[in-house]
Amino acid sequence: MPSDIEIARAATLQPITEVAAKIGIPDDALHHYGKHIAKIDHAFIKSLETKPEGKLVLVTAISPTPAGEGKTTTTVGLADALNRVGQKTVACLREPSLGPCFGMKGGAAGGGKAQVVPMEQINLHFTGDFHAITSAHSLAAALIDNHVYWANELNIDVRRIHWRRVVDMNDRALRAITQSLGGVANGFPREDGFDITVASEVMAVFCLARDLDDLEARLGRIVIAETRDRKPVTLKDVKATGAMTVLLKDALQPNLVQTLEGNPALIHGGPFANIAHGCNSVIATRAGLKLGDYVVTEAGFGADLGAEKFIDIKCRQASLKPSAVVIVATVRALKMHGGVSKKELGSENLDALEKGFANLARHVTNVRSFGLPVVVGVNHFYADTDAEHAKLKELCRDKLQVEAITCKHWAEGGAGAEELAHAVVKLAEGEQKPLSFVYETETKLTDKIRAIATKLYGAGDIQVESKAATKLAQFEKDGYGNLPVCMAKTQYSFSTDPTLMGAPSGHVIAVRDVRLSAGAGFVVVICGEIMTMPGLPKVPASEGIHLDANGQIEGLF
Amino acid sequence: MPSDIEIARAATLQPITEVAAKIGIPDDALHHYGKHIAKIDHAFIKSLETKPEGKLVLVTAISPTPAGEGKTTTTVGLADALNRVGQKTVACLREPSLGPCFGMKGGAAGGGKAQVVPMEQINLHFTGDFHAITSAHSLAAALIDNHVYWANELNIDVRRIHWRRVVDMNDRALRAITQSLGGVANGFPREDGFDITVASEVMAVFCLARDLDDLEARLGRIVIAETRDRKPVTLKDVKATGAMTVLLKDALQPNLVQTLEGNPALIHGGPFANIAHGCNSVIATRAGLKLGDYVVTEAGFGADLGAEKFIDIKCRQASLKPSAVVIVATVRALKMHGGVSKKELGSENLDALEKGFANLARHVTNVRSFGLPVVVGVNHFYADTDAEHAKLKELCRDKLQVEAITCKHWAEGGAGAEELAHAVVKLAEGEQKPLSFVYETETKLTDKIRAIATKLYGAGDIQVESKAATKLAQFEKDGYGNLPVCMAKTQYSFSTDPTLMGAPSGHVIAVRDVRLSAGAGFVVVICGEIMTMPGLPKVPASEGIHLDANGQIEGLF
Repeated sequence: MPSDIEIARAATLQPITEVAAKIGIPDDALHHYGKHIAKIDHAFIKSLETKPEGKLVLVTAISPTPAGEGKTTTTVGLADALNRVGQKTVACLREPSLGPCFGMKGGAAGGGKAQVVPMEQINLHFTGDFHAITSAHSLAAALIDNHVYWANELNIDVRRIHWRRVVDMNDRALRAITQSLGGVANGFPREDGFDITVASEVMAVFCLARDLDDLEARLGRIVIAETRDRKPVTLKDVKATGAMTVLLKDALQPNLVQTLEGNPALIHGGPFANIAHGCNSVIATRAGLKLGDYVVTEAGFGADLGAEKFIDIKCRQASLKPSAVVIVATVRALKMHGGVSKKELGSENLDALEKGFANLARHVTNVRSFGLPVVVGVNHFYADTDAEHAKLKELCRDKLQVEAITCKHWAEGGAGAEELAHAVVKLAEGEQKPLSFVYETETKLTDKIRAIATKLYGAGDIQVESKAATKLAQFEKDGYGNLPVCMAKTQYSFSTDPTLMGAPSGHVIAVRDVRLSAGAGFVVVICGEIMTMPGLPKVPASEGIHLDANGQIEGLF
Repeated sequence: MPSDIEIARAATLQPITEVAAKIGIPDDALHHYGKHIAKIDHAFIKSLETKPEGKLVLVTAISPTPAGEGKTTTTVGLADALNRVGQKTVACLREPSLGPCFGMKGGAAGGGKAQVVPMEQINLHFTGDFHAITSAHSLAAALIDNHVYWANELNIDVRRIHWRRVVDMNDRALRAITQSLGGVANGFPREDGFDITVASEVMAVFCLARDLDDLEARLGRIVIAETRDRKPVTLKDVKATGAMTVLLKDALQPNLVQTLEGNPALIHGGPFANIAHGCNSVIATRAGLKLGDYVVTEAGFGADLGAEKFIDIKCRQASLKPSAVVIVATVRALKMHGGVSKKELGSENLDALEKGFANLARHVTNVRSFGLPVVVGVNHFYADTDAEHAKLKELCRDKLQVEAITCKHWAEGGAGAEELAHAVVKLAEGEQKPLSFVYETETKLTDKIRAIATKLYGAGDIQVESKAATKLAQFEKDGYGNLPVCMAKTQYSFSTDPTLMGAPSGHVIAVRDVRLSAGAGFVVVICGEIMTMPGLPKVPASEGIHLDANGQIEGLF
């Protein structure tokens, strides 16, 4: 099998105008970025408001392992397959972050024959959305320090400025800094630090905003500091939101690209999946639903985090409801959940598979508890045995009464996921229950956390550390008690211990800290070490990235 | 007269394909960014190599004053006028920097009826070139600290890392920082700071590179640090250049836009004019010369800095030679050079004009010393009197034997600069002398500085402070003695005292520091305080920038 980049480069791409035409977007509603990428104009999107909506399919997964699951490839493969079986389908994906491309991670545009293209642009600057978000965030940072510098009329306490800075690069050296050094002309020295751009609250706001007005209003609500008498200071208070909205105006228009099979894909926004909700923009998802019979979208990490946030944050805020959920699993990953090391994954091991199945079972049960119909997509890897796939299907049928379908989209493209597509259509067109959130809006913040921990994670209880408890009480007092919570927890386990695979029970979820994201509209709950600025490995991927003699990019993936 | 943004918005823009066709660029050589902006493909530019070149016209100016000169408007107006008189002409301009838009400065796309459009995009993210440069610079910064973090095999001395970080925002708080704080996982604490992106050596390299190969080679020569035993460490040593070139690949293609009169303009690159050479990219200028009968381009600051660097750095490196030079002056600015305060500029003052004329006279003499034919473009302001314009023309004719032409492109567009256009054509098609540099390549660095100071600035001598002298000796020893020098001096005076207007003589130019820009290929000579990270004013322009009810940008200019 050739590499992802070789497959992508060998593909004959359709003009984006033709891809757009398939879902009824006229050329004058497109802002072109070369021949194969376009943004869809705000006004056209607004004009769709009265149209009926298609059906939403969420792709989520078991708890991630180093074996890989293939959530994005499944999302792309399923979208292609749905198109093949006659459903006009749009894939909605997150934009990849630039920084991690130079570290360890490959691209984030699918793989094999289930990719979105043009993959080099998508993985590099794309249409500049993340640069616009970095600029808007940086402007706010400069305005805050500038306010303090001149007269500090808002009485901002420089020890309590919560707005860190951002850069879209893996740069551990910027995690903790002191700034405004060097004398009077440079301001008041204080501690600060940088996060990677995808961790910016601007990114979360961008992905949850319904339109430009909502974007500006949400930006205005972001709490960036406290005064000396502990009153919250917002971005509106420092008069940052107008110019930030201007910087984000073009970026907020969703990006249209295509799958390798020429089907439309909207790739737009990409917030962190730990301290934010980890889904592409609401604007892209809603536009997709107006334009297609089906939208296939994905959520970050495993279903305990990604699907829960998709439902309790994104669907709740944007009044969305999936008609079917695909939980992606692999034989390899389930064997790891059953105790097999990565090196031994090449050998058949039905016992480990059965043991690791507990992880999948918990996720299936959880997603069903939202009132949603589920199918398991078993992403096929070449070393898997037929016996393993048969065993997994049997376990799903006998223990969960859920269908598990082997998918070969990575090797075969959409044709390899047609059976899954038929199953999804059957579920989506079958009986639908009302969406059941894990908690209600009016539930107290602490009880929301407990509900997630006990209902979805299998925890015995939560333990809120005193600092976090004080802040939660303050948030309730300040009127933020009705916000949903956004769990920042390891994605590798239902517990807070990343080595505890499978389906642990009765553990305690320790809440170490909480943070208010008032613009995004959630309270972040930090359980364990959460890294918001990655570092680079000893031999970064960047060392192999270069232009070849023909000016083509090598080493990116 | 309506505002710049009102004029720009009222204009009917031509499809960029039609603008391209005027200078023989086929549509398949364009990478579109919406309907009115396109990048010109690398391969098409390469295909032009064997074509004959048009004539180059440099627009420079007297020493800037707060009264304003209008160099960019003259460049645009002259390009339109040349097109009107039958010369196929391309304007080549610098890209504006994003950060300063939110501070004090308005846009940088001309003004009145002499503008390039679409001005909002040009002044904001445009095609993302500066974001790409910021990303490439940031990657290098991350790789340097990452190298030190893991094993520091190059033995980099963290006290002697010269590579600062950059952001395209006016943010004084980042001028001086300590970084890598917070413990072992974040690296080795050290001092650092941020410059604005236009001050990055990547920007200078970008603007001097002939093609992608030259770009990568130049990046590799950039000295970013010293080892513990004082050996230089380059970007090539830290294996950064391949990935940086990939990040800059698309950006290096020049951007085609149009003037308000629908004539082609290439806007590409924008290095600082103090610590760098302050001209648009060599790639854009050369492409323009292959595509048009004439290219009109501008250099930063006054002719003492901008034109000198244009000749001694850009023309020398890129084998270019202007066929004519326009020195822009205004009655207002010359009156200020003659001692009139800004408030009193509304009144006629022939004596002050004559006194201030000394500034213009020195610049004319200087530019002629390069062997170049000169015409003075007198940019008309509404409060100027006929007597003042007559007086200035008379002074130019009698004292300098140079033609001075009143231009009204700001109010009238190209029609207002037709007389200037005819004069330029006459000069460019007249007798040409060989280009005479201020110094030769093999001249010692100190003597190069002295040559500029005494020949162009009217200085008696230079005084090299001991730190600078030591470094200059080291540069000579390390083999950099053959590089041109890049003077970083106040633009407001021929001296290093910004309040000394007119044409001072016999002063001493103190050289406080020197820096090696080995990738760009020059030695920066710092005479006085040089600011590489601007701050924001008490009431930043950003406070007035917002989207109106129709989603249009207000307050940007």
